[in-house]
Amino acid sequence: MHHAHDDSSSRASARTGIWFVGARGSVASTATVGLAAITHGQSPPTGCVTAREPFASAALPAFADLVVGGHDISAVTMTKRAECLVETGMIPQRLLAATHDALERADAEVRSGYDPHAAAHGGPEEAHGSSQQDAAERLAADITAFQERHALARVVVIDVSSTEPPVVPVPEHYDTDALLAALADPTRSVLPASSVSAYAAILAGAAYAAFTPSAGMGLPALIQLARDRGIPAAGQDGKTGETWLRTVLAPAFAARGLKVLSWAGTNLLGGGDGATLADPEAVRSKLASKNRGLRALTGSDTTPLHIDNVPDLGDIKVAWDHVHVEGFLGSRLTLQTTWSAHDSMLAAPLVLDLARLLALAHAAGISGTVPELGYFFKDPWDSDVHDAAEQAGALEDWVRRTSAQVR
Amino acid sequence: MHHAHDDSSSRASARTGIWFVGARGSVASTATVGLAAITHGQSPPTGCVTAREPFASAALPAFADLVVGGHDISAVTMTKRAECLVETGMIPQRLLAATHDALERADAEVRSGYDPHAAAHGGPEEAHGSSQQDAAERLAADITAFQERHALARVVVIDVSSTEPPVVPVPEHYDTDALLAALADPTRSVLPASSVSAYAAILAGAAYAAFTPSAGMGLPALIQLARDRGIPAAGQDGKTGETWLRTVLAPAFAARGLKVLSWAGTNLLGGGDGATLADPEAVRSKLASKNRGLRALTGSDTTPLHIDNVPDLGDIKVAWDHVHVEGFLGSRLTLQTTWSAHDSMLAAPLVLDLARLLALAHAAGISGTVPELGYFFKDPWDSDVHDAAEQAGALEDWVRRTSAQVR
Amino acid sequence: MHHAHDDSSSRASARTGIWFVGARGSVASTATVGLAAITHGQSPPTGCVTAREPFASAALPAFADLVVGGHDISAVTMTKRAECLVETGMIPQRLLAATHDALERADAEVRSGYDPHAAAHGGPEEAHGSSQQDAAERLAADITAFQERHALARVVVIDVSSTEPPVVPVPEHYDTDALLAALADPTRSVLPASSVSAYAAILAGAAYAAFTPSAGMGLPALIQLARDRGIPAAGQDGKTGETWLRTVLAPAFAARGLKVLSWAGTNLLGGGDGATLADPEAVRSKLASKNRGLRALTGSDTTPLHIDNVPDLGDIKVAWDHVHVEGFLGSRLTLQTTWSAHDSMLAAPLVLDLARLLALAHAAGISGTVPELGYFFKDPWDSDVHDAAEQAGALEDWVRRTSAQVR
Amino acid sequence: MHHAHDDSSSRASARTGIWFVGARGSVASTATVGLAAITHGQSPPTGCVTAREPFASAALPAFADLVVGGHDISAVTMTKRAECLVETGMIPQRLLAATHDALERADAEVRSGYDPHAAAHGGPEEAHGSSQQDAAERLAADITAFQERHALARVVVIDVSSTEPPVVPVPEHYDTDALLAALADPTRSVLPASSVSAYAAILAGAAYAAFTPSAGMGLPALIQLARDRGIPAAGQDGKTGETWLRTVLAPAFAARGLKVLSWAGTNLLGGGDGATLADPEAVRSKLASKNRGLRALTGSDTTPLHIDNVPDLGDIKVAWDHVHVEGFLGSRLTLQTTWSAHDSMLAAPLVLDLARLLALAHAAGISGTVPELGYFFKDPWDSDVHDAAEQAGALEDWVRRTSAQVR
Ligand SMILES: NC(=O)c1ccc[n+]([C@@H]2O[C@H](COP(=O)([O-])OP(=O)(O)OC[C@H]3O[C@@H](n4cnc5c(N)ncnc54)[C@H](O)[C@@H]3O)[C@@H](O)[C@H]2O)c1
Ligand SMILES: NC(=O)c1ccc[n+]([C@@H]2O[C@H](COP(=O)([O-])OP(=O)(O)OC[C@H]3O[C@@H](n4cnc5c(N)ncnc54)[C@H](O)[C@@H]3O)[C@@H](O)[C@H]2O)c1
Ligand SMILES: NC(=O)c1ccc[n+]([C@@H]2O[C@H](COP(=O)([O-])OP(=O)(O)OC[C@H]3O[C@@H](n4cnc5c(N)ncnc54)[C@H](O)[C@@H]3O)[C@@H](O)[C@H]2O)c1
Ligand SMILES: NC(=O)c1ccc[n+]([C@@H]2O[C@H](COP(=O)([O-])OP(=O)(O)OC[C@H]3O[C@@H](n4cnc5c(N)ncnc54)[C@H](O)[C@@H]3O)[C@@H](O)[C@H]2O)c1
Ligand code: NA
Ligand code: NA
Repeated sequence: MHHAHDDSSSRASARTGIWFVGARGSVASTATVGLAAITHGQSPPTGCVTAREPFASAALPAFADLVVGGHDISAVTMTKRAECLVETGMIPQRLLAATHDALERADAEVRSGYDPHAAAHGGPEEAHGSSQQDAAERLAADITAFQERHALARVVVIDVSSTEPPVVPVPEHYDTDALLAALADPTRSVLPASSVSAYAAILAGAAYAAFTPSAGMGLPALIQLARDRGIPAAGQDGKTGETWLRTVLAPAFAARGLKVLSWAGTNLLGGGDGATLADPEAVRSKLASKNRGLRALTGSDTTPLHIDNVPDLGDIKVAWDHVHVEGFLGSRLTLQTTWSAHDSMLAAPLVLDLARLLALAHAAGISGTVPELGYFFKDPWDSDVHDAAEQAGALEDWVRRTSAQVR
Repeated sequence: MHHAHDDSSSRASARTGIWFVGARGSVASTATVGLAAITHGQSPPTGCVTAREPFASAALPAFADLVVGGHDISAVTMTKRAECLVETGMIPQRLLAATHDALERADAEVRSGYDPHAAAHGGPEEAHGSSQQDAAERLAADITAFQERHALARVVVIDVSSTEPPVVPVPEHYDTDALLAALADPTRSVLPASSVSAYAAILAGAAYAAFTPSAGMGLPALIQLARDRGIPAAGQDGKTGETWLRTVLAPAFAARGLKVLSWAGTNLLGGGDGATLADPEAVRSKLASKNRGLRALTGSDTTPLHIDNVPDLGDIKVAWDHVHVEGFLGSRLTLQTTWSAHDSMLAAPLVLDLARLLALAHAAGISGTVPELGYFFKDPWDSDVHDAAEQAGALEDWVRRTSAQVR
Repeated sequence: MHHAHDDSSSRASARTGIWFVGARGSVASTATVGLAAITHGQSPPTGCVTAREPFASAALPAFADLVVGGHDISAVTMTKRAECLVETGMIPQRLLAATHDALERADAEVRSGYDPHAAAHGGPEEAHGSSQQDAAERLAADITAFQERHALARVVVIDVSSTEPPVVPVPEHYDTDALLAALADPTRSVLPASSVSAYAAILAGAAYAAFTPSAGMGLPALIQLARDRGIPAAGQDGKTGETWLRTVLAPAFAARGLKVLSWAGTNLLGGGDGATLADPEAVRSKLASKNRGLRALTGSDTTPLHIDNVPDLGDIKVAWDHVHVEGFLGSRLTLQTTWSAHDSMLAAPLVLDLARLLALAHAAGISGTVPELGYFFKDPWDSDVHDAAEQAGALEDWVRRTSAQVR
Repeated sequence: MHHAHDDSSSRASARTGIWFVGARGSVASTATVGLAAITHGQSPPTGCVTAREPFASAALPAFADLVVGGHDISAVTMTKRAECLVETGMIPQRLLAATHDALERADAEVRSGYDPHAAAHGGPEEAHGSSQQDAAERLAADITAFQERHALARVVVIDVSSTEPPVVPVPEHYDTDALLAALADPTRSVLPASSVSAYAAILAGAAYAAFTPSAGMGLPALIQLARDRGIPAAGQDGKTGETWLRTVLAPAFAARGLKVLSWAGTNLLGGGDGATLADPEAVRSKLASKNRGLRALTGSDTTPLHIDNVPDLGDIKVAWDHVHVEGFLGSRLTLQTTWSAHDSMLAAPLVLDLARLLALAHAAGISGTVPELGYFFKDPWDSDVHDAAEQAGALEDWVRRTSAQVR
């Protein structure tokens, strides 16, 4: 993590763009509805970490200073998507009506994303014979144009697109020069889509958050590039529900000197994310990032975990956890938790938080990973801290400190 | 809280007595079995907070330096009680066999407690016409004799006797001089049994912990007396299961900006505690102390709570909580928790922790309440902090600081 | 139970009135929305017992042959009530729109109910110095006028009004002549409101169902009167959720030779019913009827049960049950169930079922209690059968038999 | 199913042998402890279906008339196994002491089972070059010798050995003659171990129950052989816990006209069965038999199901089910169940029931599958009935009828 003061855009509170990769998905659409509702006083910012102190008085852009745009590969607009979410009972009809225009405005800022399948066939956006470098430059140009069109001090790119399967490592992922060379080669496709988007963020000088478990900017060569080019980045995989709960409970058991023997879990969900994770490849990324922290916190590796696609649940995620604990004199105790929530309603406010906080990091000239944002992630970059309370403390300290610096 | 350095007994790690009020109860018997098992290496100190760092290297008496005695009004010995707990499946047969002699030795140190009903009739221990002052002096003499018999540096009195109904306040509870006068009057009984025992601790110069919701030393006049006479005291009502869980979860919701709408709970338990709490008067003390922290933490006062006596559960406590939370854009989420544990197995290690920590406070010459021990209590004295993680931090700081002071 | 063949109205399938006592409540309004939606094909009759065989081909009035009216003491119309239920997310907006006119039509058939508080003060409907006989005649006249206005073959009165506290028994409740005399006396008020309504049903020659635990027609003198006057009646207290589940599970344990030691339960609910049951008097009726069957089925009397008003849950009822069971060789097993449902959505289809089935009973000339309808009730009249599977079998047999009789 | 009256052994209540395949496993050892405890009045027959009416007065052998023997491939005796089960807290110490001699006697009747791996290498029992026919004859001889040694009227073979992976079908499984030819061929091994044991039961003229999902006697050619040779057989896969619960609940929803959308489940268990089912091949048999009935009962095929090996749970099985149901007007309700039980304590009494009931079938000369015993099985042979209440009714009818026949 390197600091470099950047004069021109040091006011963290200036107008800031959020550029969603996956802008027409459930999380992005919900965040956009919410941003409009908060801005126009139709809803309080419940569920936003940055709405409370010490964040409320920190040098963060106001909700009203955030402007939305993004990439997607789907033709179903944000408005249509939000209508579906009204239909399933997640978004209240009343709020959709109130934010309809804002959704339309945001959707007008959505551009075609990088679709690896289309790209392979020289599809709609990517020309035959074009390289991943070409694609990334096209994406970066979209971001830069958005920034100029709205006279934004900065843009934060947030990846909320569909989870990709784990990436097969190649040497170029570990070596910046090799990577740049391969990107320029039209015959090669060394990066998954999420990483092409992350690279585009770097090219556009935008801050970046990886809300998914996809590779994104997490490849060593890209993180290095971000560091070199003054881009602050945070990841990975939003910690919104069951995993968050686990990182609240597990440290509490440890503080009591109680020993977790096993921690079993099952997640049921429908919606777009459920459908994606029904793919046994895609789900592997998710399961890995969900279990890593738990094992670190408990020392147990009996942590069976399942994610089931249950379409009739729609966007509701139901998670059951069974914790088996050894106590005094070998006695056993069990804790079961059942969590039931609209998944995107948990993610959306955190996504807005990340936009505000990365705007601060960008204004402060921080480059590379920001481990103090680990609170938001299942698999925090450059940090071994998973304890939610400890992460919350570190986040508050960082905001106070960094905020003081940019004022 | 006042500090006064006491030369003679400043080594916190010297031999220390634990004097249980309610020595033949489930918690005290389990703690005694456990202490012996830990001391002789038959069981690790799982569930003891002070077994981990920074406590492990602090100036606390070793488990092997703790000696058990106490008061009770029951004739059923600790050994018999432990046998019953083996019968119900709580204590393993193997450990009972291994600790049988230690239990017998501890029970030989048990003396007749103050029984208000017997006292009213000039019962076995209290002579006709004797005052509560007389009774307290008799109890104090038992403690002092114990201390001398075993050449103990200090004694920590821990109230683990049956929960009493809420006490009806009288002016003497608020005025030390008036209280002392009333105590000397054989025609009056201004203190509940738990407070007579607490007063005896003061007379004996012993540190004191209130593990029950009974009045104990919590009456203002007694706390003042403790402060005046250099007695460190901590309370009140051990935070061992469902309430602990609530003070872990509620602050975590708050940190997320999520708003708790209601938090309903039901506790099922049998055993001695279950039978006591089947009394609608006694249970009022418990319900009050369980809900106070929750309301402070969540701001909600929709917190219906029940405690049911379910004799067939024996010492197992099963608690179900239903938390209804408002999230982003008015969406709702629910968290349910089911906790199932042998209640005394949760309490016993914390009781040993308190003995060790109050020995340190005593060695350091701290007098009056020790708010930094709030981690252990549902209703922490002189503290508004209920957040378990915050309390754990404060406890660690206090131990480091105080430990440095006595070395 | 007496049978007497009634020529004029023997076609069970003729047009039938449902007269709701409590017509503007949540259950009645939901049933009315549902009836319209089913009739016009906007919703299938999911949750209606009578929609499946052998009922579907039995001599029951079709859904389209049911006409709604009723009494209430609230001025908030069925339409308004349904709008509130849309607001809370229980009724879909789309269905409200589709059934708006039907709701308006039904509400136009709602008349002022008997309000004991207003009556005591000679309030809006009951004149000063009027007797309960006068009141019942007024109510009966409303029902008769409704029947004539719509040329209905018969009317079924269904009590879905607010639960009343348990009634204090007086001799008149056990003696028909004494009751009739007291009713005529303007200075006396021997019946609770629910029983005045039940008496009105008798006067109007209408069949009757007690969906609440209130006294209603359950007083011996009234049941006798129903029998004498050829009125079929079924009760009491709709078995819709947790209690239904218990009467499914408890017999299944018994069939396995497993012994229930304790069965603890907690119900959380908001809405109108939640508010009513927050009254410690009213809740006593409900708790009694919920536990009676369970104790009969299990033989255990450790059945602690709570109902908590949790306003933020709205019409959602959440019920947690903890069943502790003894198995082979004294081993223990536990079953926990958590039930979460919109309470009125469970009740409404059963209310429509009862209307159809009591129309059949009426057509068949059955008078007095119909124990074969026990399937629908927590506290079945004139039956000791609580086993839901056994009740379902008895119901099917009865319908086949009675249906054959009226054809 | 054919009936043929067999004079010599028609008294169903005569002394009967239980021959366990897997005699040293958890289920068999627990059943043996229990049988002794019941016989000697140290424990009531809680959990035995046949201990209640109408079974109690049916023509079944008394518990005291049952004698235990069996096959196993493990050298760990039943007594040792029972001691382990005391250690884990499942069997009470007191009962082990009381039944020690009975266990030793039963274990003295245990002979070496057919071990396919050892057989492949001409291991301890099977000689090099021996056929599966030879092996089955050896096993049958063990059973016959047991029957003669104890002068038993009949023997019931019950397969409680480790679950095998699904068998790969070969033509011989469908054709008795072809099967018999292949069995005689020392170069072939067409049957899995469970089916070799089932064939041995046929050769020995013993009744047979398949308590596991393994192929056992379930192969068409073997069932045909059983029918031809007058052997009654029942299967398959004991319905003891979660699956039983599902077949209680699912029909109850259907009776209400409620529509199950999805039914998700997770099973956690340790012990021998947990370890076996950790094998992804073996677990496939189990998952299939668990889900078949559920899909038949609900019509839904969204029934994700998991079985996780959680060694620290020992013999405790914890199962969580989440049922998502559509009700009136498209409303949704959820039921969650958490079941926690010692798995073998559920299975053992049912195994004793099966021995008694198959003795009756044998005495009555019934041959082939007995579909009326479907109550006991996840995957009932020759029956499509999964509804537990309906199965219980059919079982009672069958017992009354068959009992009358043999008296
Ligand atoms: N609580 C939560 O909701 C939560 C928590 C952690 C992580 N996440 C992650 O957030 C992501 C979004 O979740 P969601 O529920 O909104 O999913 P979704 O399926 O509704 O939306 C994903 C969107 O990404 C788009 N997309 C796919 N490939 C793309 C590409 N190459 N370029 C641009 N857009 C592309 C899709 O068209 C779709 O609109 C998922 O990866 C999920 O795992 C969500
Ligand atoms: N997890 C927990 O177990 C837990 C948590 C918080 C608080 N507590 C409290 O700890 C206390 C002890 O619980 P337990 O399960 O051991 O109960 P218990 O009933 O087994 O033991 C109480 C003992 O106190 C004795 N006693 C009663 N009156 C006395 C008196 N006047 N003087 C001396 N002794 C007296 C009784 O004879 C009995 O031996 C209870 O008040 C309980 O509420 C327990
Ligand atoms: N699943 C279920 O919903 C369920 C199950 C069993 C029983 N019940 C019972 O059904 C009843 C109705 O439940 P709800 O949720 O509709 O309640 P609600 O409070 O929404 O409706 C009750 C209605 O009764 C009316 N009322 C009160 N006193 C009256 C009187 N004297 N005459 C005429 N009307 C009167 C009220 O004005 C109100 O409109 C309750 O008694 C409840 O206990 C409901
Ligand atoms: N509730 C229940 O416990 C339950 C319910 C349904 C089915 N079952 C089935 O019952 C069976 C037994 O369960 P358990 O818990 O006792 O398992 P276990 O592992 O404790 O016992 C299985 C026994 O079978 C023996 N065995 C293995 N292969 C053999 C062979 N070829 N011949 C003879 N013996 C052999 C093993 O040595 C072992 O002693 C399992 O298949 C299980 O799936 C159990
Ligand atoms: Na306090
Ligand atoms: Na009855």
